Amino acid sequence: MSQGESGRRSTPEPGGAQGPTLGELGEDGILRVVFAAFRDEEAAGGRVLVGPGDDTALLATGGAVLATTDTVVAGRDWRDDWSTGRDVGAKVVAQNLADLAAMGGAGTGLLVTLVAPGHTPAAWVEDLTAGIAAAARAARVPVIGGDLSSTEGPVMVSVTALGELTVARPVLRSGARPGHVLAVAGPVGRSAAGLELLRAGWDGTTRRDLVDYHRAPTPDLAAGPAAAAAGASAMIDVSDGLVRDAGRLARASAVLIDLDADAVGAHAAALTPELPEDVALDCVLRGGEEHEMLATFPDGALGALTGWMVIGRVREAGAQGEAPAPGVRYRGEPLAGGGWDHFGG
Amino acid sequence: MSQGESGRRSTPEPGGAQGPTLGELGEDGILRVVFAAFRDEEAAGGRVLVGPGDDTALLATGGAVLATTDTVVAGRDWRDDWSTGRDVGAKVVAQNLADLAAMGGAGTGLLVTLVAPGHTPAAWVEDLTAGIAAAARAARVPVIGGDLSSTEGPVMVSVTALGELTVARPVLRSGARPGHVLAVAGPVGRSAAGLELLRAGWDGTTRRDLVDYHRAPTPDLAAGPAAAAAGASAMIDVSDGLVRDAGRLARASAVLIDLDADAVGAHAAALTPELPEDVALDCVLRGGEEHEMLATFPDGALGALTGWMVIGRVREAGAQGEAPAPGVRYRGEPLAGGGWDHFGG
Repeated sequence: MSQGESGRRSTPEPGGAQGPTLGELGEDGILRVVFAAFRDEEAAGGRVLVGPGDDTALLATGGAVLATTDTVVAGRDWRDDWSTGRDVGAKVVAQNLADLAAMGGAGTGLLVTLVAPGHTPAAWVEDLTAGIAAAARAARVPVIGGDLSSTEGPVMVSVTALGELTVARPVLRSGARPGHVLAVAGPVGRSAAGLELLRAGWDGTTRRDLVDYHRAPTPDLAAGPAAAAAGASAMIDVSDGLVRDAGRLARASAVLIDLDADAVGAHAAALTPELPEDVALDCVLRGGEEHEMLATFPDGALGALTGWMVIGRVREAGAQGEAPAPGVRYRGEPLAGGGWDHFGG
Repeated sequence: MSQGESGRRSTPEPGGAQGPTLGELGEDGILRVVFAAFRDEEAAGGRVLVGPGDDTALLATGGAVLATTDTVVAGRDWRDDWSTGRDVGAKVVAQNLADLAAMGGAGTGLLVTLVAPGHTPAAWVEDLTAGIAAAARAARVPVIGGDLSSTEGPVMVSVTALGELTVARPVLRSGARPGHVLAVAGPVGRSAAGLELLRAGWDGTTRRDLVDYHRAPTPDLAAGPAAAAAGASAMIDVSDGLVRDAGRLARASAVLIDLDADAVGAHAAALTPELPEDVALDCVLRGGEEHEMLATFPDGALGALTGWMVIGRVREAGAQGEAPAPGVRYRGEPLAGGGWDHFGG
């Protein structure tokens, strides 16, 4: 869902002459708008036994259901002067579906919760729901329910994604073994690089791809099931930064992951010269909201896949309490933490 | 989970000398506290194939999964001077499980999202998670995942409940037919009455049952599956008020529902003399957050159940566009709307 400048419009201001607010529409009026956007029988594929409008949804499943939830908050996860409601909707759907993909799964249903102040323009919510509906339709996942509430604080959108495995067993974070390779299914650092450009007062001409990816990431969701089918041993999506997410694989698997400095450098080089080299490197190592798949593979398994790039190797960590501890190394040095912490801890 | 005054403690104040805040603990520190509270293998009953800590949860299911989500916001859905974190946790779990029960279902897993400012005392969050964990354990439903985010605004807790039907088919809102009776599985108006007492400066001595029910409602969740098994034709839980929720049944079923004035009066009488008669009546007709089951039954079906009270009768509505329109009547007059609207519309 690449979004050109022509498709972008300024965020309606509270109190502006741009149509009614949520407070003016009232709950039933808002729900009419929202239900209309999500009424998409086509995507349902017969799985939705009960859709929005009753006490709960009822979704046909196989023997097991995947479930994940992710929330975005205005001012933290987006800025209204940089992202439209449509961008926000696309982003929150993508990050939820990426979690399903990182298990080797695909979506079967979404629940959408909006908590917003009464002065929020109804047009913004229409835009948000259009973005959610478009991203859901592109992934062939129906919106099956949700909730609506009000707040004095910033707008918040929470999505729960349900899904099913496309393979017999989920790909967990804990299956990486010494000798496996670490690979990514797409470029890393684009979202953080786009954010850096916006922060630097982006003039709208260069590297729109990065800015668009920051606003509404479009990770390769099919890469997750493909990696699972090819025998990926561990998988996660890059949501909080390469170092932090690779570190999660390393600790869950009790292994050491050596990042390949040349490969990291190649990802960073794709972000220059629009960004200084040190900033580009930081975007690759610590940039979150990327949502591309990051997985480990036994020797040879990667050969069956296209589009994946090796970015590290799995090594043996020390026995319990001995060095080297499970984690991520870059140029021979342990890289701790980094990436996004909601509470700055 | 009746909560005595002895079990109540004052809400820790931001900046008080009552231990660390979320900002001081950091995301990983908070998650350690939260995961510890939700680590309850006992409740899982072998259904949780993957629990918290990976990209998604994986839950064993039969052929279909029920899914619903409900969110509470500080200052809207609770006041910190009237409710503890534990109350809030119990309440948000109860209202989600009530939605499952109103389909004839029972919970199989919960996803819990917390969005809170950094100055929130960690002790409040521990209290919240204890309330969620206790309510989940009482209902034998495991917490299988969730999300954590920060905001500059008020605390918000969002729960998604997954469940399974206990009967072959869900009880929808649309099955009420002329001649059926409308019945409730418990007293109506308690939560609103408790709120009225708190607003009037409750002295802590009278009608603790009402105040406790407002803080942490304990609807009879088993009544939903029992009603479904007995042949209930339509069902909902009283979340936004008797008139509003009965109205939803009436409109979904295209029927008229006549409330029984004597039965309504009996429910109101249970709230006097602590509340004036007119306030008590309003609590019964329009009080939300009650979460007891409200269902319609064909003639005779109610005989198999205990604890249910008839509170109305289903009549034929006019043909399309003709009077009487589908809705709720009380003393022969149509009662429109009423109950809670998040946006005051």
